[in-house]
Amino acid sequence: MPEYISGELKPAGLRCLAGIHYHPSIQAMKGLLMMKKRTAKLIDGKKVSEAILSELKQEIEGLKAQGITPGLAVVLVGEDPGSQIYVRNKRRTCAEIGVASFAYDLPKETPEKKLLDLIAKLNADPKVHGILVQSPVPKHIDEQKVLNALDPRKDVDGFHPVSKGKLLNGEECFVACTPAGCQELLLRYGYDPAGKHVVIVGRSNIVGKPVAALLMQKAKGANATVTVCHSRTKNLSAVTQTADILIAAIGVANFIKARMVKKGVVVIDVGMNRIPDATKKSGSRLCGDVDFAGVSKKAKAITPVPGGVGPMTIAMLMKNTVFAAKRSGK
Amino acid sequence: MPEYISGELKPAGLRCLAGIHYHPSIQAMKGLLMMKKRTAKLIDGKKVSEAILSELKQEIEGLKAQGITPGLAVVLVGEDPGSQIYVRNKRRTCAEIGVASFAYDLPKETPEKKLLDLIAKLNADPKVHGILVQSPVPKHIDEQKVLNALDPRKDVDGFHPVSKGKLLNGEECFVACTPAGCQELLLRYGYDPAGKHVVIVGRSNIVGKPVAALLMQKAKGANATVTVCHSRTKNLSAVTQTADILIAAIGVANFIKARMVKKGVVVIDVGMNRIPDATKKSGSRLCGDVDFAGVSKKAKAITPVPGGVGPMTIAMLMKNTVFAAKRSGK
Repeated sequence: MPEYISGELKPAGLRCLAGIHYHPSIQAMKGLLMMKKRTAKLIDGKKVSEAILSELKQEIEGLKAQGITPGLAVVLVGEDPGSQIYVRNKRRTCAEIGVASFAYDLPKETPEKKLLDLIAKLNADPKVHGILVQSPVPKHIDEQKVLNALDPRKDVDGFHPVSKGKLLNGEECFVACTPAGCQELLLRYGYDPAGKHVVIVGRSNIVGKPVAALLMQKAKGANATVTVCHSRTKNLSAVTQTADILIAAIGVANFIKARMVKKGVVVIDVGMNRIPDATKKSGSRLCGDVDFAGVSKKAKAITPVPGGVGPMTIAMLMKNTVFAAKRSGK
Repeated sequence: MPEYISGELKPAGLRCLAGIHYHPSIQAMKGLLMMKKRTAKLIDGKKVSEAILSELKQEIEGLKAQGITPGLAVVLVGEDPGSQIYVRNKRRTCAEIGVASFAYDLPKETPEKKLLDLIAKLNADPKVHGILVQSPVPKHIDEQKVLNALDPRKDVDGFHPVSKGKLLNGEECFVACTPAGCQELLLRYGYDPAGKHVVIVGRSNIVGKPVAALLMQKAKGANATVTVCHSRTKNLSAVTQTADILIAAIGVANFIKARMVKKGVVVIDVGMNRIPDATKKSGSRLCGDVDFAGVSKKAKAITPVPGGVGPMTIAMLMKNTVFAAKRSGK
């Protein structure tokens, strides 16, 4: 096994120098060198999500003893392969922890009216405590109209305007799952956002804006000074460098570089991008919005991709479903 | 008439020096000196609101020709003197521009149920396009419950969760009047927030949080990088000093000092505080959250208090009412 020198890669011509051998695969070696230098603590979303699911499983047993079985309807329209994976994972998690899962797989050409009729039926069904319509829906369907048709009391995804409005107001509500997962990761690892400067890069309706609303509240686990950056932000690096906690949710692979953060930052990477990788059998791999190799050398703590925010999203969906079921009994 | 020297106040012992005389009232003189040094452009909310009301008046004439008279129900519970003034102003403005105003003045001890019944009646009344319940309501009434009872289509104050949620999502909605007024002032004076760093001090449900949601959107007149600061923000001055546009909405008189802002900032002062002033007949005067005398020397532009955001709030309420009436015709 050859020894590797740490630091910047040398040009190929210097591959063998003073008895030190370089691995033939530059890419693999670079990864290895960078791994060696990581100083950041890993925020393990898989571990945290398993802990949450295990807590929920116990809670569900208690509910069942009272005659309440939390029920989640998962509606999928069309055959998008990514959506199929997400939906399968959600249904599998339901089964694992004892949530009754109601599956509705509709063909791609389903008319909007038919989907709205299904929503109305599920709204009225007392066995269904939560309803989730997997995004995106086919283009001939108005997604916002479908979301608005949900009974807000069953809006476990937290996307209905009533949920969003209550979130902004700081009222009790279904918090959108990915934002809730980001907060939970911070808290379970002891990085309370109170008084910290949280910089959010990205202003989507499913992550950036709701996580901003969540963390700026006068509430336990929140109380952050919050900045939202986006495509129109000038001198983005100057802003991200002021972050105590950085939440990256822009959907651009490896966008946040080491030079854009300050030493000791806590990084939550919401990105989930597929990029080509010839070393993988599939020819590609998942990566986040953060250049993990570089940023993990400066950060105090960081989520990996995969295994960071991803598993938390499903866990928070289950938490919302259990909450909906508990509330329905009142 | 004596001449006044500009600059810092001299000690009393130097009152008469080289033939220059000082006015006997130090306070009045100080104000005058500072006025002399103001470099900021005044953002005149009174003038802008009059322009908007005049535009609306014309629009209402057009609507009346189509048989639609915009109607606003203004509900006041109790005899709070401040609320009485606000309500009187709103009703007077309705009369001035041709909005039909429906007055409901209820005694302080009105039960919550009775108020909710009135809301239900107004929700169903086709002559009423907008409903406003003057805040605050007496303590035995749950204000959020009352707001939630409004038909969102008549929520001209923009306080219903549906309005707030749509605002956060960037959907068409009733924008809360004070935030809408702040945006309108910026735009009418040519200070487009796009790409600018807007720092908001305060996170109330009626100003701070909704104005943040409004200005961070990917939309015309928005697109700002937005930071929300509050009581838990550490090193507030360091944050406010980075503002291109500063919105002060904390409710503390003269809180924002010159040293807390950078040269060339545009300042929107939402504060409306009453402080003692022995020179006034009433013994008090209104002032904002910004130390106007000091900050106006560094700012590029600034709103006065009174005469800044205040008149805009009523103008935007009227705009929302006309919008509601137009939409009802569809």
